[in-house]
Amino acid sequence: MNVTLRGRTEHFRTVSFDAKTNTVRLIEQRLLPHEFKIVGTKDFHETARAITDMIVRGAGAIGSTAAYGLAQGAQAFRGGDLKKFSAHVKTVYQTLADARPTAVDPVNAINDVRREMARGNNVAEQQSLALAAAEEFANEDARHCAEIGAHGAKLIRHGMRILTHCNAGWLAFVDTGTATAPLYAAQAQGKKFHVFCDETRPRSQGATLTAWELAQQKISHQIIADNAAGHLMQRGEIDLVIVGSDRTLGRTGEVTNKVGTYTKAVLAARHKIPFYVAIPLSTIDWNLKRGFDIPIEDRHESEVLGAWGITSRGQREYVRVANPTSSARNPGFDVTPPELITGIITPAGIFRPKELWPHRAKLGFIT
Amino acid sequence: MNVTLRGRTEHFRTVSFDAKTNTVRLIEQRLLPHEFKIVGTKDFHETARAITDMIVRGAGAIGSTAAYGLAQGAQAFRGGDLKKFSAHVKTVYQTLADARPTAVDPVNAINDVRREMARGNNVAEQQSLALAAAEEFANEDARHCAEIGAHGAKLIRHGMRILTHCNAGWLAFVDTGTATAPLYAAQAQGKKFHVFCDETRPRSQGATLTAWELAQQKISHQIIADNAAGHLMQRGEIDLVIVGSDRTLGRTGEVTNKVGTYTKAVLAARHKIPFYVAIPLSTIDWNLKRGFDIPIEDRHESEVLGAWGITSRGQREYVRVANPTSSARNPGFDVTPPELITGIITPAGIFRPKELWPHRAKLGFIT
Repeated sequence: MNVTLRGRTEHFRTVSFDAKTNTVRLIEQRLLPHEFKIVGTKDFHETARAITDMIVRGAGAIGSTAAYGLAQGAQAFRGGDLKKFSAHVKTVYQTLADARPTAVDPVNAINDVRREMARGNNVAEQQSLALAAAEEFANEDARHCAEIGAHGAKLIRHGMRILTHCNAGWLAFVDTGTATAPLYAAQAQGKKFHVFCDETRPRSQGATLTAWELAQQKISHQIIADNAAGHLMQRGEIDLVIVGSDRTLGRTGEVTNKVGTYTKAVLAARHKIPFYVAIPLSTIDWNLKRGFDIPIEDRHESEVLGAWGITSRGQREYVRVANPTSSARNPGFDVTPPELITGIITPAGIFRPKELWPHRAKLGFIT
Repeated sequence: MNVTLRGRTEHFRTVSFDAKTNTVRLIEQRLLPHEFKIVGTKDFHETARAITDMIVRGAGAIGSTAAYGLAQGAQAFRGGDLKKFSAHVKTVYQTLADARPTAVDPVNAINDVRREMARGNNVAEQQSLALAAAEEFANEDARHCAEIGAHGAKLIRHGMRILTHCNAGWLAFVDTGTATAPLYAAQAQGKKFHVFCDETRPRSQGATLTAWELAQQKISHQIIADNAAGHLMQRGEIDLVIVGSDRTLGRTGEVTNKVGTYTKAVLAARHKIPFYVAIPLSTIDWNLKRGFDIPIEDRHESEVLGAWGITSRGQREYVRVANPTSSARNPGFDVTPPELITGIITPAGIFRPKELWPHRAKLGFIT
């Protein structure tokens, strides 16, 4: 998407590859929203570390970073010995797979690249196929998000006030994002609307990343405390809710997303406000049979007990907000049942949650 | 309630009066939860300023502070000229009434003290009546909270997990508090239970004040992000919700409280979890006919855009969390309709929200 730096507007992807210097280029997301900076990782070790250290985060973005990392590692090999090359690629693969052990996207991505590479007959061919596969992986991510945008934009009418939670924006993907894609597409169609960004405690991704994205795209928006959406709905000030998802159960239509999503869905249902979830196909889990079985990560309590921000002297600091002798409970996600969800926006169209399973072939489920 | 300082446990009220030195003694609430300190205000000007500057906050606490302030001002008068004394008292009254112009409690309190004073025939008598009336005002506040505790404790069973929102604790009153009163009473009865404190963004009174109170009383508790209660309810981990109220409509049973209360009531109703509101009689509004007409204060956006806390160097600082080019919307309160409220805990017993009006005589409504 577009970013304006010192008055100049330029298009960026979250992740891209510079073939000339064999460098993966990443937006340094840990500095956002306070600073925008592109960093380059010079070899696959650095690329893996960028995933581990969360310079890059978000399902699509870390998948594409890993894909480029594998291509980068392959490109760095010198010589024509295919056996040595394969051993080298194995090391690269393992290093990238270990970068974020619980995330599925990097592994899916590098499996994809490795499968494509295998079609090459010699080192040079495999190197070139790896690069092409990584580029295609990233392009497909961007294309899918654009398709989500095209479908989702139909839901947005002029003058609407839209609530979103957390960040399923372009920073989490290669471009456009999922929950934000309908916003960007509607804006491109000339529609005017207003977005309320849930702050999304404890990590505040709504107040930091989503708000930064919307500000850059010049979309009218305001941040609200997570407590405020109920009041705004009650007073008729929210017309539509769009969120993302980390895992959607294809068999049941249950949606796992950042903690607080379920609360917003309950409120939206009470107020008869349409509640949509925008997802890439890669996040559909076709195996699990019950949302209750989705493991909900209990994260470190320090996230709840304080906040990161910029002091009056411009320094990034953590402040302890809570009573120093109290502890916290910090579930990272929650599960929203299908009856609270109006529709699921996918690259292949919009479906009711219970319609995912009957349409599984169209949605990429391979039996 | 009890506070433990350097290993010694002592009983404190939020507000008290030292007749010997004519000083109002207050817990300096702006330092909590990071420091506990008692400050003394030497004259009615300082007492009024303590209310303005929020050294003391909360309905019952600022009411009693103003009552003591009027007695303090009256005591400071030297001589026997009743006319001069009355003029002086008028100045004291106006200074205290102006300390927090939108709050009703200080004005109700000083009206009470002034009415009692008027029964005296000379300066000395009026001075002494003022002091007695102020003491009685504070004692009644503490007594009412204790009565709320006695009624509310019946709702708490051994092993329960209880959610609370914001701070309607003893720090907001003279002692015991309202939403916390049933907890303290149940603890005194030997019941064991666990409390989840909603952080209560944007001002985090749950994470700071309520958590501090519970830690001091050694009640098992954890702070949660405001987003987390829905998930905990869904997983069967919350059995009861108790909150306070800033204004309850006697005619309709609608409850105004800190923003986010309505959301918790909606969630509790969905999960069939009892939802109680604990209130002193002084917060019942017998006039207003519709909750929609309650003015909801839009507070400064800086509260939502950042947080106050303690840095690693031990300094209290505000950090800007949100994207620097975004703005915020910050409604301070919301209104919960009666159908979501199981009961209202008052000093006179527990009532269904719609039962307040039929019981208005018992609840202190004077027609």
